[in-house]
Amino acid sequence: MQLDQVTYDQLAELEQSLTADYNAVKPQGLSLDLTRGKPSEEQVALSDALDGILQGNYLTEESIDCRNYGGIDGIAAMKHFGAQLLEVDPANVLVGGNSSLTLMHQAVLYAHLLGVDNNKANAWREEEGQIKFLCPVPGYDRHFSICEQLDIEMINVAMTATGPDMDQVEALVKADPLIKGIWCVPKYANPTGIVYSDDTVERIAALGSIAGKNFRVMWDNAYAVHDLTTTPQTLASITKYSQTYGTEDNIIQFASTSKITYAGSGIAFLSASANNLTAFKTQLGISTIGPDKVNQQRHALFFKEAGALTAHMRKHQALTRPKFDIVLNALEAAFGNCDDIRWTRPAGGYFISVDLLPGLAQQVVSLAGAVGVKLTPAGATFPYGNDPNDSNIRLAPTYPPIAEIERAIHVFILCVKLALVQKKLGESPP
Amino acid sequence: MQLDQVTYDQLAELEQSLTADYNAVKPQGLSLDLTRGKPSEEQVALSDALDGILQGNYLTEESIDCRNYGGIDGIAAMKHFGAQLLEVDPANVLVGGNSSLTLMHQAVLYAHLLGVDNNKANAWREEEGQIKFLCPVPGYDRHFSICEQLDIEMINVAMTATGPDMDQVEALVKADPLIKGIWCVPKYANPTGIVYSDDTVERIAALGSIAGKNFRVMWDNAYAVHDLTTTPQTLASITKYSQTYGTEDNIIQFASTSKITYAGSGIAFLSASANNLTAFKTQLGISTIGPDKVNQQRHALFFKEAGALTAHMRKHQALTRPKFDIVLNALEAAFGNCDDIRWTRPAGGYFISVDLLPGLAQQVVSLAGAVGVKLTPAGATFPYGNDPNDSNIRLAPTYPPIAEIERAIHVFILCVKLALVQKKLGESPP
Repeated sequence: MQLDQVTYDQLAELEQSLTADYNAVKPQGLSLDLTRGKPSEEQVALSDALDGILQGNYLTEESIDCRNYGGIDGIAAMKHFGAQLLEVDPANVLVGGNSSLTLMHQAVLYAHLLGVDNNKANAWREEEGQIKFLCPVPGYDRHFSICEQLDIEMINVAMTATGPDMDQVEALVKADPLIKGIWCVPKYANPTGIVYSDDTVERIAALGSIAGKNFRVMWDNAYAVHDLTTTPQTLASITKYSQTYGTEDNIIQFASTSKITYAGSGIAFLSASANNLTAFKTQLGISTIGPDKVNQQRHALFFKEAGALTAHMRKHQALTRPKFDIVLNALEAAFGNCDDIRWTRPAGGYFISVDLLPGLAQQVVSLAGAVGVKLTPAGATFPYGNDPNDSNIRLAPTYPPIAEIERAIHVFILCVKLALVQKKLGESPP
Repeated sequence: MQLDQVTYDQLAELEQSLTADYNAVKPQGLSLDLTRGKPSEEQVALSDALDGILQGNYLTEESIDCRNYGGIDGIAAMKHFGAQLLEVDPANVLVGGNSSLTLMHQAVLYAHLLGVDNNKANAWREEEGQIKFLCPVPGYDRHFSICEQLDIEMINVAMTATGPDMDQVEALVKADPLIKGIWCVPKYANPTGIVYSDDTVERIAALGSIAGKNFRVMWDNAYAVHDLTTTPQTLASITKYSQTYGTEDNIIQFASTSKITYAGSGIAFLSASANNLTAFKTQLGISTIGPDKVNQQRHALFFKEAGALTAHMRKHQALTRPKFDIVLNALEAAFGNCDDIRWTRPAGGYFISVDLLPGLAQQVVSLAGAVGVKLTPAGATFPYGNDPNDSNIRLAPTYPPIAEIERAIHVFILCVKLALVQKKLGESPP
């Protein structure tokens, strides 16, 4: 579709024909869902060997009975696994429960309420003034909800092709000492799919030297090994840069196996400096005696062989790649020559991010919803659910079966075309 | 041992002989531990059929794939199980992760920070003045740590043979509107083993009508089915009483399978009114997408047959009862005719609570520790680790093998005798 050169009459005709197509979808009673980044049934089934894997092996490699209490930071084998995932030292890894989101919530909560060093005098809430976080946008709604729950003000930062706009980030942090953190999904970012460039990683690692000891980079490496190609992009090590800048305490890294084994029944990881870990373990120890070590042991046995993780992720890729291709090919076929819509072509992760002309996102989501295709609510990828341009839509193609994705993307494209043509029509002289 | 009628010389002689016995223990290089209420290796092994139990059954009874995201309040079958455990309606049950302590921490944290009704204007921290909790003592140290972390002041309340001293509780609550909660382990209390009487349960249920809508009874029913006899004591239903008094919103109940299946890898439960559940789920949903439903499904299958829980708990009883008998028989044989030491004879739970003469608890713990028998630190059963009488010691006999318990209780008795005789000697005229 190319709408630059068309006349008013051609637009009107197009609108009529698209409306007819759209109205023809309604009676089909579709119930399709492109909302959340969930693995499909085939993907979770890749890990069904977890059932029955223990075979009496309840002693961990450090000779702990995983069936009993204790071990606030998890079992050694999974510290190694988390270290491999995050490319850090196992000594810096805490192995948690089933949710890295919970670890992130705890990290922010503890910093806010109890102090990053478990000294309440240093808690963010003790600062004089409104605490703030930087939020590269579009980003992950659940990060933003944590800030909102804890009354931490969020400041939008633009995403570029190489990560957050670092000139903007550095200027903001220099100007306002009440900015205490930044949310980052550094690899295959949610939802843009961007991998932060080496320069960006270095500049983020250096932020602590501007922002001071109470500042935290929330480094959510959720898609560290979730490649869509066999020649994956690499992410520079923020750990190494932080060692150069002496900002190790300013970085907290997260990962999980939710999209590796089972979503919601996997293992979550936090990696941080020795100082941070000491404080975090003390704070965490008040609310739990320890994580589910039996599930950790299952995962340790599941990934025991060298190369097991890589081989496992290839199986995921074989299932997810065709789904991304359907969406990307359909968008290309429909809008390849259209300047009024842009979308990402991610090399990994779970999302495709679509940018429409300003003011169209909510309309497209409504149009699609009205004919049974559920899209992530417009604005969800922005703090407070407010996309100032009303232009971004996040597509999540991994969960539905291929036939449903084909149907859903067809409807999505139809809705985008209709909204676009209606907008042009409203703006054109008759 | 009966020390009332002995002369100074007899005491001196006794002290000499006990000291000789004590000194003879030291070279044995013991390393025994009566500190924590942990199930033994034989007990956790009772649940090893959890491994391999799924056999492809990943669909829950409500047709949810337990391997994927979602379901903030858990799966239906485990709501029923939790309801059975707490004798409540399944509609009032939230099935959590691996730790009821975490659910308790969250309940207190949310009330303090976000409001019991998720309205921050009603949060405890918004009250003018120091928020307080009532703590029946001796009690569970981890309850007290939650209050300490959140700067909630703790007020000791005496335990009687029927539960907390309710005259004292009611008077305190009437006098001080800043008292926002009370910790209760109503059945086989930690560490006293007391089961609250019907009258106590009713009066606790009624507290909300004195204390108002922001008050919460933290009803930690950790030992609901952990009987040491085949004719278990019953606990009145606080739910029913709260319905009578219209105080349903003032009660939050907790339980877990940590001492039923695996300690730290079981399933935790929270039960509360519809109002409380709605607020709690909203608040919890910010920090997690949902609990580990695969482990919930394992447990649902494990306890599928009617009567499975009762039969399972009988197996625990067969393992724990002999250990309690060893300790109780040894105490009876040593101090049956001595008025200077009292201990509980629990019909369930995980602990024996020993009360020594004031000022002796720390000394006995030190004496035992010095010869390799680790006891729970004196004071641990009191808020701020401070037993004002320095008299209470908690014994936890479930974890060690029988031979170790025999050795450990022998040393404990020796240390008590020595401390007692030394005290008497100090107080007697030569």
